[in-house]
Amino acid sequence: MADINASIAFDKTLWRQDIRGSLAHAAMLARVGLLTASEEQEIREGLNGIAEEIANDRFEFSQELEDIHMNIEARLSERIGEAGKRLHTARSRNDQVATDFRLWVRDAIDGISGQIAALMRSLATRARDHAADAMPGFTHLQVAQPVTFGHHLLAYVEMLSRDLGRLGDARARLNECPLGSAALAGTSFPIDRHFTAAQLGFDRPTANSLDSVSDRDFALEYLSALSLLGMHLSRLSEELVLWCSAPFGFIRLSDGFTTGSSIMPQKKNPDAAELVRAKVGRIAGDYMGLLMVMKGLPLAYAKDTQEDKEPVFDATEAATLSLAAMDGMIRDMVADTGRMRDLAGTGFATATDLADWLVRVPRLPFRTAHHVTGRLVGMAEAKGCDLSDLTLEEMQGVEPRIDRGIFDVLTVDSSLASRTSEGGTAPENVLRAAQLWLDRLGENRS
Amino acid sequence: MADINASIAFDKTLWRQDIRGSLAHAAMLARVGLLTASEEQEIREGLNGIAEEIANDRFEFSQELEDIHMNIEARLSERIGEAGKRLHTARSRNDQVATDFRLWVRDAIDGISGQIAALMRSLATRARDHAADAMPGFTHLQVAQPVTFGHHLLAYVEMLSRDLGRLGDARARLNECPLGSAALAGTSFPIDRHFTAAQLGFDRPTANSLDSVSDRDFALEYLSALSLLGMHLSRLSEELVLWCSAPFGFIRLSDGFTTGSSIMPQKKNPDAAELVRAKVGRIAGDYMGLLMVMKGLPLAYAKDTQEDKEPVFDATEAATLSLAAMDGMIRDMVADTGRMRDLAGTGFATATDLADWLVRVPRLPFRTAHHVTGRLVGMAEAKGCDLSDLTLEEMQGVEPRIDRGIFDVLTVDSSLASRTSEGGTAPENVLRAAQLWLDRLGENRS
Amino acid sequence: MADINASIAFDKTLWRQDIRGSLAHAAMLARVGLLTASEEQEIREGLNGIAEEIANDRFEFSQELEDIHMNIEARLSERIGEAGKRLHTARSRNDQVATDFRLWVRDAIDGISGQIAALMRSLATRARDHAADAMPGFTHLQVAQPVTFGHHLLAYVEMLSRDLGRLGDARARLNECPLGSAALAGTSFPIDRHFTAAQLGFDRPTANSLDSVSDRDFALEYLSALSLLGMHLSRLSEELVLWCSAPFGFIRLSDGFTTGSSIMPQKKNPDAAELVRAKVGRIAGDYMGLLMVMKGLPLAYAKDTQEDKEPVFDATEAATLSLAAMDGMIRDMVADTGRMRDLAGTGFATATDLADWLVRVPRLPFRTAHHVTGRLVGMAEAKGCDLSDLTLEEMQGVEPRIDRGIFDVLTVDSSLASRTSEGGTAPENVLRAAQLWLDRLGENRS
Amino acid sequence: MADINASIAFDKTLWRQDIRGSLAHAAMLARVGLLTASEEQEIREGLNGIAEEIANDRFEFSQELEDIHMNIEARLSERIGEAGKRLHTARSRNDQVATDFRLWVRDAIDGISGQIAALMRSLATRARDHAADAMPGFTHLQVAQPVTFGHHLLAYVEMLSRDLGRLGDARARLNECPLGSAALAGTSFPIDRHFTAAQLGFDRPTANSLDSVSDRDFALEYLSALSLLGMHLSRLSEELVLWCSAPFGFIRLSDGFTTGSSIMPQKKNPDAAELVRAKVGRIAGDYMGLLMVMKGLPLAYAKDTQEDKEPVFDATEAATLSLAAMDGMIRDMVADTGRMRDLAGTGFATATDLADWLVRVPRLPFRTAHHVTGRLVGMAEAKGCDLSDLTLEEMQGVEPRIDRGIFDVLTVDSSLASRTSEGGTAPENVLRAAQLWLDRLGENRS
Repeated sequence: MADINASIAFDKTLWRQDIRGSLAHAAMLARVGLLTASEEQEIREGLNGIAEEIANDRFEFSQELEDIHMNIEARLSERIGEAGKRLHTARSRNDQVATDFRLWVRDAIDGISGQIAALMRSLATRARDHAADAMPGFTHLQVAQPVTFGHHLLAYVEMLSRDLGRLGDARARLNECPLGSAALAGTSFPIDRHFTAAQLGFDRPTANSLDSVSDRDFALEYLSALSLLGMHLSRLSEELVLWCSAPFGFIRLSDGFTTGSSIMPQKKNPDAAELVRAKVGRIAGDYMGLLMVMKGLPLAYAKDTQEDKEPVFDATEAATLSLAAMDGMIRDMVADTGRMRDLAGTGFATATDLADWLVRVPRLPFRTAHHVTGRLVGMAEAKGCDLSDLTLEEMQGVEPRIDRGIFDVLTVDSSLASRTSEGGTAPENVLRAAQLWLDRLGENRS
Repeated sequence: MADINASIAFDKTLWRQDIRGSLAHAAMLARVGLLTASEEQEIREGLNGIAEEIANDRFEFSQELEDIHMNIEARLSERIGEAGKRLHTARSRNDQVATDFRLWVRDAIDGISGQIAALMRSLATRARDHAADAMPGFTHLQVAQPVTFGHHLLAYVEMLSRDLGRLGDARARLNECPLGSAALAGTSFPIDRHFTAAQLGFDRPTANSLDSVSDRDFALEYLSALSLLGMHLSRLSEELVLWCSAPFGFIRLSDGFTTGSSIMPQKKNPDAAELVRAKVGRIAGDYMGLLMVMKGLPLAYAKDTQEDKEPVFDATEAATLSLAAMDGMIRDMVADTGRMRDLAGTGFATATDLADWLVRVPRLPFRTAHHVTGRLVGMAEAKGCDLSDLTLEEMQGVEPRIDRGIFDVLTVDSSLASRTSEGGTAPENVLRAAQLWLDRLGENRS
Repeated sequence: MADINASIAFDKTLWRQDIRGSLAHAAMLARVGLLTASEEQEIREGLNGIAEEIANDRFEFSQELEDIHMNIEARLSERIGEAGKRLHTARSRNDQVATDFRLWVRDAIDGISGQIAALMRSLATRARDHAADAMPGFTHLQVAQPVTFGHHLLAYVEMLSRDLGRLGDARARLNECPLGSAALAGTSFPIDRHFTAAQLGFDRPTANSLDSVSDRDFALEYLSALSLLGMHLSRLSEELVLWCSAPFGFIRLSDGFTTGSSIMPQKKNPDAAELVRAKVGRIAGDYMGLLMVMKGLPLAYAKDTQEDKEPVFDATEAATLSLAAMDGMIRDMVADTGRMRDLAGTGFATATDLADWLVRVPRLPFRTAHHVTGRLVGMAEAKGCDLSDLTLEEMQGVEPRIDRGIFDVLTVDSSLASRTSEGGTAPENVLRAAQLWLDRLGENRS
Repeated sequence: MADINASIAFDKTLWRQDIRGSLAHAAMLARVGLLTASEEQEIREGLNGIAEEIANDRFEFSQELEDIHMNIEARLSERIGEAGKRLHTARSRNDQVATDFRLWVRDAIDGISGQIAALMRSLATRARDHAADAMPGFTHLQVAQPVTFGHHLLAYVEMLSRDLGRLGDARARLNECPLGSAALAGTSFPIDRHFTAAQLGFDRPTANSLDSVSDRDFALEYLSALSLLGMHLSRLSEELVLWCSAPFGFIRLSDGFTTGSSIMPQKKNPDAAELVRAKVGRIAGDYMGLLMVMKGLPLAYAKDTQEDKEPVFDATEAATLSLAAMDGMIRDMVADTGRMRDLAGTGFATATDLADWLVRVPRLPFRTAHHVTGRLVGMAEAKGCDLSDLTLEEMQGVEPRIDRGIFDVLTVDSSLASRTSEGGTAPENVLRAAQLWLDRLGENRS
């Protein structure tokens, strides 16, 4: 029973938040007259002393006392006696743990958000450098149209900016203080929940005591936001793995982010990218697990919710490691821009440009232009040459309205330069977008 | 291959959005001179005619044409010839489907949000009626402290308000227009993406063409918000099932929401509540499935993302049905307030009130008061009576500072009335909170 | 990079398996002449010495050496020099870790299976004791028909026996030895994989080296079996929570499996049951996470699979704790058989018996009998009495063919006694089934 | 309510199984005297008539009658009157649906298993053809060691054989007949459950009536087996997508399994492979969803379990489509064996062979050989040549014990030929393994 019931092994992670919450609670109790000034001072000094003990690894956690809350409270009574026993007035473990955990998740959001912003800066910086460097744009992993490497990297900046937005929204929504909800019904003590909330940086107290002690949707929303972040990072990781494979050869990663095989000294295995690719599984599993825990639970507090912390801690660590590793790889990677450009021009990648020219200049209907292009591609394929190697006469044989102007749109560079529609891959667009992000994100501080 | 590849069987659901998107695209093409005014008019009339055909079930969907986009475009060319072939200028199926799907999800969010608000109104209305009706507040499904039935119902209003917030945030984040991103790289046509975006009610065009055609996090964020909604509804459903079981006997549901057994005519099986309880599984499965689909996909468009629609359609239907059924049950249920009140007073449910009195009046430290309360409860248990049946002398034998005032706090009603802390269960609080929600939500329109 | 890459923090759990695998590998190398007898002896003694160091906490794990395999191999070379460097001949970390992990999972299956069997014994023992004790059989949590408590408990024995079967099947399927697959392609050394396999208790070597180092379906199958086990335990836990709630009052659990609230000394919170109920979330999350990790991975070994261990360790611990807690609760619970019997007779629970009598004796068609029963129940409901309180005349007013014999089937006991169909709830059936399980499972050894 | 409650829209899929079950039930009732021979004959003819109506689309399904069972039973009474009303004797919808659904899942397992075997045959056939064709063996998607294409394909045959095993085990475990469990408690009619079980091809009746009507782990076990199958197929799909990308260029797929882009006529998009890659998400979501539905449900039957069918139907269709598409692609793909062989020899892919030679011939300790190999690779890398281009003198400069024999192991073919360990990639091994599978699987029947 002790083994399954005690949570101290993992909830000691909450010690800072627990002490912060108790300090605010004590201050509030003193303010409304439920503690004397000197009692409050004793408690404050006692808690600060305990914080120091824990920080310096001099605190003995007891499994018998089950959780971090009882461990700290018991030690407080040991240190300061009577006053310590008054601290738990007008609160319960139920609202206490809900408060501690919200504080922890809020701190975690702030940490992860900072890391995401740093990664966005790194990507935008690399994007600015490679704003005009051609690479094959793939659909279905088939060469489709030329894009720039910078444009490709900025796609991830957009994804990450939405991840940042989701975390910000989750933070705003969770930022209400459950403390004072007591066990489940509120309390008869004349407490000031607005004061406590303000002390702890919450926007306001929560509005319903039953809801406050029983729901964990803030943790689930956080885990869900991390799942999408993890999904985005898994996609970028997959690309890094592909790009540094021999057949692609688009980038190299240094020894800092690769390992040699135990049997093949010359290989550069992109272990870090693979591990980041995998982490989404873990994070999503954490989300799914907690969602299942919460399914069908009647109000109010149930012990089932003790299962909320480990998945959140685990997913946070996975996300933190992933972001750090990814940021490192993005800064570290060296692009083989020649290799990318070469491949960008293969596979009749400017066929779309040809079709668009047919629409734009001789004003063929789109579907007709598409059909003409298909015939020209077929002709080039049969001759074993590029589109630009077809003669004007050959082209006119298929569509007489074609003139010499067409050759202007068949190169990789002309294709890139022409995609000036908003959000398109034209180098000038990419440069502007990269700079815009760097301006928004501020200086790269690391 | 056709069986696995064609999506028309499910993506025809998008027909309204596809036509809306094409109308906006055509208007934009005309505005920038890529269509003449009369071409645009032909297209407009053609699309409106097709809309009418589909609405009236006179449209023949073809599996050979694979998807809704090609079905409609082919029919347009059939109806209006040449001009129809120009419609696809400066767009691709990739940005078209991304646009249609965003429009569909946005519409779904609006529909679901309206249903959530309606359910919140129903709950708040019932909460206002039952603001002062006692029920046992449970923790661990053990009787803990009295609460009011209204307070309990309002806990779900709080949960649902966060669900509403999550959907609103998802809506705001997805409200950018991918149209004009073309296949993946943008286009060389001089299009006006701001115009198209505004026509379709989007806040702005998306910022990166690769991201626009490849990401589906808007669908995932929506599914995740529905998962949490489903989780909340599963909890309320569980409670309905418990409440209308014989041992609880808190409520009755009418035949509208129950069924008889095929073999036991007198039973009222809460089938609707059970089905709502189950739906969270389905919705969460939809979320998880799509997340797994997106894991590790390289940019840009991949056919894998065709798997995005069915889970979204399925989860939307599950949520819609669940909300309708739950709203009906909440309006329908008849509470046995006498039964609830009787149970609320059992199990020494006012022990906390006693302990709090000891802290508040003779100012015992909380932990000491707790200990004294334990001894008094033990004494009552041994005598087989309630706390209020102990004599003053008996109580004073345990703690001499107890006086006659203690009897004022030992009844269910005094307990309820005393919980006046913000968010507490005091009837006046509950009434105020219910009214506040009703004011916020506006008149119940149904 | 080191933080995300090193696995020693968790894979040291594999130390016993790693040493067992190395001993078998060395014995094989000696057998085929790749090691001399004295080299093999040195290695054996070295490894045994290391095992002792680890068992006695005297081994210093180094994060720099990344994983358990390198930690042990490095220490071996330190201890015995040259011979230690020969151990890794004809193997690679890829087949080594696959072997270690299979051994670990096999051990875990054996441990969990033993626990399941113990729980089945406890359930069957309690079922034998309560073979004839009536309780309400619920459908939709509505009182449906009387069953016996023993019958109800045996339902879980059936579920658990299938869980046991699944684990056994998983064990049989994984019991092939990957060692000798080397990095991915096999080896040119003249190794004897059958010998190694036999040494380690495997049925045979694996058949394809690429498959051997890259697949982890054995871990997934194991996690999936644990998920279903966890689901079954969550159902039983839910019932325990319900049963010990005040409205049900079917059982009591002792202090060994409940906790008091920090604020309400008299409550018995079924924390252990709630925690077991929750564990399925965690286990299912572990399964889902690893499945997502494996999705779409190209062959052969990828670092992503390093994420296989923690979910397996975590789920194993969750299952182990759950089984121990559940076994304890089943042995510990005290049934209030009077309360159960009382409720079993309410709600016209013998209506089915009445309907069946109408079919059996006057031979009404089933659907007609059903209709007649409905009218009689309605009559009893209107009179506020039980079915057995209706007079013969009243009954005959509805259906003249009813005679006095009907009163024999309207009691709880007669209902129970009549359900003698195979698998039915008649006490004699239940007793026989309980005894059959106890015979199959052998003496309860704890 | 009707919308959420009625299941006829999807459970009509069970019509064959429902009729089969009713035929067996009627035969049993006649056998034990609960039906007369002529009643049984009427029922048989009536049910066969209904089967014909449904098969020929002449049956009108009614939503009011809720489910397939009531639709068929009502129609039966319509057709044959009185006797039809006797069919439901000694059964309930609860055991009826459990039986129908088991029959359906059993049929589905048989269908899927046949498809898996067909795919295994196709893979083994292609493997036999390519038993000696070199391709690069990858770890971490880095070129590691040469393998043969046949060997690579056979890895999937191994995976699929385990999937087949899992489905077979699931089939054996579910093959017990719930019919006769009635609503939940068994029945007082003198039925012969062994007879019914035998009629329906079940091995025996289920052992506990409560378990029979409430558990759905057979469906979950099936879904879990499909999830692992889907995972394996996602890996092979990922490889097909990679292999037919331009940078790899290992295979080509015909138009039957690829599509052209709407804008780029020359592209061959591997849509089918991408869709198969995605399906694992859907299947896993189905599994997860149903597991969540079952979590924490008290016994016996609850309406929640009505959510069991759609995920099973959906996953079955996804698996069926995936297997058909994959089988088609495997038969269809044309390998560019020259391209594969070229890449197999790059990246010092025979470094392991060199290291193994150093261990085998001059008998260096493995770790020393590894170190020497590293230096030689570094030397070759610096010179920009292959290992086989180093001179003997250069090699001896690093390790004097190297002699001319070393050049025999540095080619792709010698490397392949040397991997003769059991399960290794030597062409003779691969040929034998492919033939063994073809012998086991029998003639390819399609």
